[in-house]
Amino acid sequence: MPGSADSTAEPDSKRGKLHPSIARVREAVRTALAELPRETTVLVACSGGADSLALAAATAFEAPKLGLRAGAVVVDHGLQAGSADVAATAAEQCRSLGLDPVQIRAVEVGDEGGPEGAARTARYDALRDVADEVGADVVLLAHTRDDQAETVLLGLARGSGARSLAAMAPVAGVLRRPFLEVSRATAAAACVASGLRPWRDPHNDDPAYKRVRVRHEVLPVLEEVLGPGVTEALARTAGLLRADADALDVLAADLAETAVRRTEDEVVCDIGMLEVEPTAIRTRALRQAALQAGCRATDLTAGHVAAVDALVTDWRGQRWIDLPQGIRAVRRAGFIVLAPGVTG
Amino acid sequence: MPGSADSTAEPDSKRGKLHPSIARVREAVRTALAELPRETTVLVACSGGADSLALAAATAFEAPKLGLRAGAVVVDHGLQAGSADVAATAAEQCRSLGLDPVQIRAVEVGDEGGPEGAARTARYDALRDVADEVGADVVLLAHTRDDQAETVLLGLARGSGARSLAAMAPVAGVLRRPFLEVSRATAAAACVASGLRPWRDPHNDDPAYKRVRVRHEVLPVLEEVLGPGVTEALARTAGLLRADADALDVLAADLAETAVRRTEDEVVCDIGMLEVEPTAIRTRALRQAALQAGCRATDLTAGHVAAVDALVTDWRGQRWIDLPQGIRAVRRAGFIVLAPGVTG
Repeated sequence: MPGSADSTAEPDSKRGKLHPSIARVREAVRTALAELPRETTVLVACSGGADSLALAAATAFEAPKLGLRAGAVVVDHGLQAGSADVAATAAEQCRSLGLDPVQIRAVEVGDEGGPEGAARTARYDALRDVADEVGADVVLLAHTRDDQAETVLLGLARGSGARSLAAMAPVAGVLRRPFLEVSRATAAAACVASGLRPWRDPHNDDPAYKRVRVRHEVLPVLEEVLGPGVTEALARTAGLLRADADALDVLAADLAETAVRRTEDEVVCDIGMLEVEPTAIRTRALRQAALQAGCRATDLTAGHVAAVDALVTDWRGQRWIDLPQGIRAVRRAGFIVLAPGVTG
Repeated sequence: MPGSADSTAEPDSKRGKLHPSIARVREAVRTALAELPRETTVLVACSGGADSLALAAATAFEAPKLGLRAGAVVVDHGLQAGSADVAATAAEQCRSLGLDPVQIRAVEVGDEGGPEGAARTARYDALRDVADEVGADVVLLAHTRDDQAETVLLGLARGSGARSLAAMAPVAGVLRRPFLEVSRATAAAACVASGLRPWRDPHNDDPAYKRVRVRHEVLPVLEEVLGPGVTEALARTAGLLRADADALDVLAADLAETAVRRTEDEVVCDIGMLEVEPTAIRTRALRQAALQAGCRATDLTAGHVAAVDALVTDWRGQRWIDLPQGIRAVRRAGFIVLAPGVTG
C-alpha cells in the first residue's frame, strides 16, 4: 500500500530520524544475515517491485556493517512488453544503493507447471546460476508475510498435510527469505521512505493468476469473517507446521532406515516394525518407501499412502494397491512389497 | 441441499433399490460401530435436522445387525421460540425409526465462550449425562465433512498450529462422529430418501454466527478461486494434522517425562536435554511444562511458547518471560525455571 505510506513517510535522510518501517526491514535483514561468515557474498533478487527494492536498500545498508559483500540479480522473464526496461531500471536502482555486482539475467519461461510454476522454475534456476557465477553463497528473496499467507491458502487446496501448508522456507539451500515475518505494507512503506520508486507489476492485478485471486478475493473475505490478524495467523501456522513436518520426516527416515529394505527389484517394508509406530510417522515412512520404489513425489497423494497404510493397519485381504508410475503395493507374508506390477 | 435430492430420491422401500446416499451413510455408521462389543448401547444425538436424522435412520438400521442397542437423545437448547416442539418432533421421528430409549433433555445455555461455545458446552454436558443415565457407552454425532472443513477454517484464525487445524476428532471419549467423511449433501439426500422430513434450523442462516459466515461467504469463494474439492481437502488436512499432533504430543510427553521436573514451588526444565530435540517436540514439551506450572491452556499462545523456547535456543541474556496466570519463565544455570514471579 504505497499510497497509505506516502502520507507519513519521507526519505529518512531529510528528517534525521529512522522511519519505523525502515528500522523493521533492516532488523529483519540483520537477523537473516547475522551468522554468515565475514566476506560472504549475498545477492538480493530484485524485480524492481516495492518488496524487493526495500530488501535491496536494507541489505545495502546492513551487509557492509557485518563485513559481507552485497550484490543484486534482476531476472527479466521476458513475459511483458518493456520487461528489459523494467529490469534495467531495477538494476540501476540497485547500483545506486551501492550494491555490487548487479547482474541482469534474461530467462526463457517454459510451460511446465502452469504459468506461475514455469516462471518460478526459470527464476530460481537463474538465481542459482548467477550465485554460482559470482561466488555468492546466499540469495535473498523478498517474500513477505502476506505472500506466505497466500501460499498457505494455495497449499490448502492440495489437502496433502503439513508439508504443503508449511509454505515457503526461511532458508532453503542458498535461498533465504528475511521478510517472511514482515508485512507487505511495511515493506512498501520502507521502500517509499527510502526514497525509492517501485515498479508496479501489472501481473499483481491479473486475476488469471490464482495467487492474485487469493490476495484480492479470498483473504479480504477471510479477514472480514474471521477477524483481522488472519494473515499473521496463516504465516504463523506455516512456521509451526514446517517444524512439525521437519521433525516427523526425520523420525520417518529413521524408521525407514530399519523397516524398509530395497532390493534390485522391489522395496520391502516390515509390517511388524511399522504397525507399532504412530500413524504420522508410519505413513511418512511408507511414503518414502513408495518414492524409493519409483513413484514421483508430485503424483503420490495422501490417498495413495492411506491405501498402502490400510494394508498394514486394516488388513482385510485387500488385493494390490495401484500407485503412480505403475508401481503396485501388496501385502505378502508379513511384508508390504512395492514394485512395478507386483501382485499377491 | 434437500432440494436437489428431492428430484431423484424417494423412500427406498417404494423402489426396492437402495438410494446411494443411504448406502453411503449406512456404511459410515457400520464402520464407526464395527468394533463395539455386542449389547453396547449407542445413542444418536439428534436435533431433527437433516444430518442427524440421516444418522438416526442409519443407526436404527445398522445397530441391531451388529447386536447393539440404539437410542437417541434430543437436546432442547431453549434458544428459539418453539424449541420444545422441535425437540418433541425429532424425538417422535427417532421413535418411529425404532430407536429406544429416546430422551429429550432441556438445557440452560450460559454465556461463557460466546453463543456457539456456550451452546456446545451445554449440549455436550447433556449428552454425556444422558449417556451415563441410560448406560450408553457411545454417543454418535452427525458432524459432516462440510462441518469439519468449516471448523478447520475457524481454527486457522487462531494460528496455533496442527492441533487447532485438526478440528473435530472421529472419536473423543464417548463421542463418535461417523459422518466426518460424508458430505452434507449426501446426508441430506439420505434423510429425504429415507422418507424423513428434516427440521431446518434458522440459526443455520444467521450471519451472527461465524460458522454460518464461513459456510456461506468463505467456502464458496475458496471453492471458486482454488477449485472444487476444497472442502474435501480441508477435511483431509484435518485428519492428517490430527495424526501429526497426536504423534508429536506423545513424543513431547516422553521428553517432558525426563527433561521436566516439578517441585513444590516451580517447574524446572533441563536445557541440555531440550536443546538437542527437534523444535516441534521441544516446544511442545515446554508448553506442557508451562501448563504444569499453572498456565491455562486457553491463554497460553504459540507466541508465549516461542519466547520461552528462545531462552533455550537463542539465549542472549534475556530477562524473564511473562506467561499467563502470572507465571514467569527464566533461564538459570542450565535450566528453564517456571514459577509465579520468579526472576533470574
